[in-house]
Amino acid sequence: MSVSDRERLARIALCRLAEPGDPRLTSLVVELGAIRVRDHLLAERDLRGLQTDIAARLADLDPATDLERAHQAGIRYVIPGDDEWPTRLDDLAGAAPLQQRGGVPLGLWVRGPMRLDQLTSAVAVVGSRSSTSYGDGVSGTIGAGLAREGWWVVSGAAYGIDQAAHRGALAGSDEGRTVAVLACGVDRAYPASHQALLAHVAEVGAVISEVAPGCSPSRLRFLSRNRLIAALTTGTVVVQAAARSGALNTANWASRLHRVLMAVPGSVNTAQSQGTLELIRSGAAALVTDAADVLEMLGASGEHLTQPRRGPVRSRDRLSSRQQQVLDAVPLLHAAPVDSIARTAGIGLVEVHKTLTWLLEAELVEQTETGWRLTPLASQ
Amino acid sequence: MSVSDRERLARIALCRLAEPGDPRLTSLVVELGAIRVRDHLLAERDLRGLQTDIAARLADLDPATDLERAHQAGIRYVIPGDDEWPTRLDDLAGAAPLQQRGGVPLGLWVRGPMRLDQLTSAVAVVGSRSSTSYGDGVSGTIGAGLAREGWWVVSGAAYGIDQAAHRGALAGSDEGRTVAVLACGVDRAYPASHQALLAHVAEVGAVISEVAPGCSPSRLRFLSRNRLIAALTTGTVVVQAAARSGALNTANWASRLHRVLMAVPGSVNTAQSQGTLELIRSGAAALVTDAADVLEMLGASGEHLTQPRRGPVRSRDRLSSRQQQVLDAVPLLHAAPVDSIARTAGIGLVEVHKTLTWLLEAELVEQTETGWRLTPLASQ
Repeated sequence: MSVSDRERLARIALCRLAEPGDPRLTSLVVELGAIRVRDHLLAERDLRGLQTDIAARLADLDPATDLERAHQAGIRYVIPGDDEWPTRLDDLAGAAPLQQRGGVPLGLWVRGPMRLDQLTSAVAVVGSRSSTSYGDGVSGTIGAGLAREGWWVVSGAAYGIDQAAHRGALAGSDEGRTVAVLACGVDRAYPASHQALLAHVAEVGAVISEVAPGCSPSRLRFLSRNRLIAALTTGTVVVQAAARSGALNTANWASRLHRVLMAVPGSVNTAQSQGTLELIRSGAAALVTDAADVLEMLGASGEHLTQPRRGPVRSRDRLSSRQQQVLDAVPLLHAAPVDSIARTAGIGLVEVHKTLTWLLEAELVEQTETGWRLTPLASQ
Repeated sequence: MSVSDRERLARIALCRLAEPGDPRLTSLVVELGAIRVRDHLLAERDLRGLQTDIAARLADLDPATDLERAHQAGIRYVIPGDDEWPTRLDDLAGAAPLQQRGGVPLGLWVRGPMRLDQLTSAVAVVGSRSSTSYGDGVSGTIGAGLAREGWWVVSGAAYGIDQAAHRGALAGSDEGRTVAVLACGVDRAYPASHQALLAHVAEVGAVISEVAPGCSPSRLRFLSRNRLIAALTTGTVVVQAAARSGALNTANWASRLHRVLMAVPGSVNTAQSQGTLELIRSGAAALVTDAADVLEMLGASGEHLTQPRRGPVRSRDRLSSRQQQVLDAVPLLHAAPVDSIARTAGIGLVEVHKTLTWLLEAELVEQTETGWRLTPLASQ
């Protein structure tokens, strides 16, 4: 058995023993390695002849069988040091715990063909379970746009914003670039109605969890899971979130890990916007409206730079005051002769004619048989 | 005739002579005073024996009659040095022109009982003419909220956001704290369908214009007017604006004059949000959702500080990991006995009982005849 395999089995045992994201355990493992931590805990069995609860439970575990069963179910256990280990997760070692969860996960149970080291180009798209159709629409559009540009869309497979993001990413690229991070075992579906969605994600991307196959989700495990979504990605987009949404926990982790935090605005009257608007208002998150905005925020590359949000460039803005006065006197629908325009503008005929010729070149006015009128460009 | 009256008549003459916001004229008047500028222009008549166009037009004007007629129509002409002159406008002297408009206005034609020096507590609420019902609703609510707090709501009486802001302010306070700044004479209604609205504003607040009574609006005059809306107020709120909305011109003036610029977010799919979202995205404007936000941005006073946008504070957030584990094992609907909860949580009976007692005090669980279950507080 290679060192790496012993380490893997020790991590599986510890993973079975403790709740995910226990900051004491995760930091001990980073410091000592899983084998030494496990051996320390096991040694407690003989400590003063008392069998501790922990040592007894640890001794009863059979990580080799766990791993064998996982492999049979098409599930692998990826740990630090593995080629595909997403090293971004190591940032968690330096971040303070949040709601008593934190630290580098002992390992990740993975179902799906995607290698986790591909997550270098990954964005989290998360939000309310009780989203509105507006939120679902934006989430799907952003998910699709990111996948189309070759980015992995990471989310939590929950109702609402999460599932819209996954579905968008599946639709947006032939390869289906999306990853679901669960608070339960990767062999389970939560919510149950997302079984088909998760099966699809596992076919083309990856379904990931910190907790062992077979485990149920719990509040604690959701909180623990959220840190992984933030840590695995370059940035987190919160599409909709009410004032106390769990998505804000993910947002908090993104900030804590110095990831790019982004939020989509919405109606000030919608409960599901209150969390995102507060993120923007407070300056915690950048306002984004689509995938192009997201990629620009991530500094993805020159090709992703968004178009400046401007209307068509109108020559009107470069006009002199006198040119504007003439232009204001030119009718929109029914062309007028020069003398009529000159009267309306209160400017001499010669100057008006000269100005109209200039405006003609600027495509702001056009000449008809009966005189001059505005072009569509001028009347915008 | 007092000096002030001679100055007033000179300003009326210049106002008749030139388009409003001509930056050369306004800066000359600030430098030399209106009398000297007028006299200089008049003297050109004899210059080299040629009668200039300007001098001829100036000589033909009759500002005393203009003023007399205005007074008869209940309109006054307020100029710098008058008690009620809104000194904020003097900031325009130091701001660079925008689209060739700028400078301190020669004076303001005013219809209505409000004294302009009351504008020390004033906010501009502006936006698209082609607003959505969402935009109109938010504009009206913000207008009403500001008026209720004793602030003057300044806008341009246009269709859409402007009129909703005026109407909101009229409805929000018994005194009807709103001011309309027009691009045409204050005796005219533009758009015509807002005649009743403008009459109401003139009854309780003020209708203001830089251009003389009787004048029509023009594109140039709208641009010129926008700078007054920004300059007269402490801050400008853009409620809705498409990518090239005229409201962005007002926003630009607000920034230029170091006023507080604010914008209301909206759907990323609505054209009328593109301008406001870009203002927020670029950092030019602060995101505001209601009157309380606006007043906080203006640093109005302690009493206007907004409530932090948070959901109810949940004791859950302060739980230890162990307490959370126990809480996760407590059922929501049908109470369970301690031993069942202990099994589910995988924690010893004594510790579970101790923890449940603590959770009971925290009102996160409740005890029934058959055992323990979550309170509504815990299940939020």
